[in-house]
Amino acid sequence: MPISDQEPVSLTPEEVQTVIRQGLPVAQECGLCVELGPHGGIRVRQPFDEKQIRPGGTISGPAMMGLADAAMYAAILARLGRVEMAVTQNLNINFLARPKPSELVADAEIIRLGRRSAVLEVRVYSEGGDQLVAHVTGIYAIPVEK
Amino acid sequence: MPISDQEPVSLTPEEVQTVIRQGLPVAQECGLCVELGPHGGIRVRQPFDEKQIRPGGTISGPAMMGLADAAMYAAILARLGRVEMAVTQNLNINFLARPKPSELVADAEIIRLGRRSAVLEVRVYSEGGDQLVAHVTGIYAIPVEK
Amino acid sequence: MPISDQEPVSLTPEEVQTVIRQGLPVAQECGLCVELGPHGGIRVRQPFDEKQIRPGGTISGPAMMGLADAAMYAAILARLGRVEMAVTQNLNINFLARPKPSELVADAEIIRLGRRSAVLEVRVYSEGGDQLVAHVTGIYAIPVEK
Amino acid sequence: MPISDQEPVSLTPEEVQTVIRQGLPVAQECGLCVELGPHGGIRVRQPFDEKQIRPGGTISGPAMMGLADAAMYAAILARLGRVEMAVTQNLNINFLARPKPSELVADAEIIRLGRRSAVLEVRVYSEGGDQLVAHVTGIYAIPVEK
Repeated sequence: MPISDQEPVSLTPEEVQTVIRQGLPVAQECGLCVELGPHGGIRVRQPFDEKQIRPGGTISGPAMMGLADAAMYAAILARLGRVEMAVTQNLNINFLARPKPSELVADAEIIRLGRRSAVLEVRVYSEGGDQLVAHVTGIYAIPVEK
Repeated sequence: MPISDQEPVSLTPEEVQTVIRQGLPVAQECGLCVELGPHGGIRVRQPFDEKQIRPGGTISGPAMMGLADAAMYAAILARLGRVEMAVTQNLNINFLARPKPSELVADAEIIRLGRRSAVLEVRVYSEGGDQLVAHVTGIYAIPVEK
Repeated sequence: MPISDQEPVSLTPEEVQTVIRQGLPVAQECGLCVELGPHGGIRVRQPFDEKQIRPGGTISGPAMMGLADAAMYAAILARLGRVEMAVTQNLNINFLARPKPSELVADAEIIRLGRRSAVLEVRVYSEGGDQLVAHVTGIYAIPVEK
Repeated sequence: MPISDQEPVSLTPEEVQTVIRQGLPVAQECGLCVELGPHGGIRVRQPFDEKQIRPGGTISGPAMMGLADAAMYAAILARLGRVEMAVTQNLNINFLARPKPSELVADAEIIRLGRRSAVLEVRVYSEGGDQLVAHVTGIYAIPVEK
């Protein structure tokens, strides 16, 4: 059961989206959208951009990695507030299917929240489908001063 | 000892760079440069772009992940030729230091080459420094038709 | 949704347990038990053994890794039948809590099943508790002759 | 360049071996041996035991994972002294070849040492051969009280 079912959040999805877009020029350019996800987690949407294409006509791996990392960051901010200095320590991604050229959706959940780090899981889907295209786990370091 | 010390390559770094820039709009936009690396491996350079910035004034994680993935892809193409349909199956990255806003350099080596997949290791440095900023391992699936 | 919800299995948990104990002396010695898990997945139980202890009085990491790997193997066998030559290609584990000295339970699900490889997710719990002590993802290579 | 080239060690390999065997019954039973490795790193040897066999007559994955984890732990103790409460946070392993039934050798290096965590790389070989059988990276949490 995700921690986020049991705990209040610190920022709304809208507030998280504003913080991320202000801090990350890439997120602003991509038009990343932050929403509530299933199980009290956070969902981030990444509109399709032709620049994400790779040979074979599917979306490139880095586009999925970038989205997954943004979704973890969003879940951390939603839970802990404005810890913008939280940084990824480790990210592990398994690519499961080649996503068609359309919007991607990433659902992030915190599976362990410690004082100094958090472990998260992210599932990335092709928009409109039930097709899981990537599975991600990651560790975020949380700034201690918070 | 990297496999690449012992085996002929199929494409020159210049040819690899051309193939990657043609297939990946993002690589073209970034201005990725492909060179020979140490130990017969492949080195890929990613010029700094202000869009890569994240809170704290350092380069964002996804910029490093994208470069590492491109470096693995480049190493595969250099060894095997035009297998553009090779795709990442797994990527694991440990972030070691926060890179200053400057060019990044990624050195990729194939540590196992099978018929259907390859395992690679990538070390990402800040330009001009000896500072290792990220360590990456990954698995690429190689198209069988090759 | 796990693949295993939608597909017939090839071996019962009892049959899988027999195959694993015959092929792996360690599994026989540990007394690994194979059962059905939630969502049509496979659950493997590992009785506590004092040899698993590490400083701090908790169970050592390798005991959890070994269980997780066995649970992935069991899930593959249950789905595909006697593919004993299936082997782990990659395993990534995040340790979430230090398990007390008691039985461990691992729930494995296949999240992608291809012809030549499978990607799995395993959640490891302390017996009797809801405490998730480790989260694992892995890739298994499936013998082609099957 | 590994940190360990540049820094004094706190415990000798013999001292590390004693600490590990005292704290981990499994290490005592396996007869793990700790030595100096290349580049100032730490090498750990694991004698072959018939119980490590898996179908196909090779050594099982968990035997390699256990050795790699022990080698990381040994490298941490050698550098930092008796931080027995250091624990693995993350371990990622790629299996590269199936080791014949013989002694395994693991060379561990610290690639980043922070105050609260360390990132390590381990290469696992079959004894007597140059064959790399597994590549491992991991993160250890270091107790703050030290």
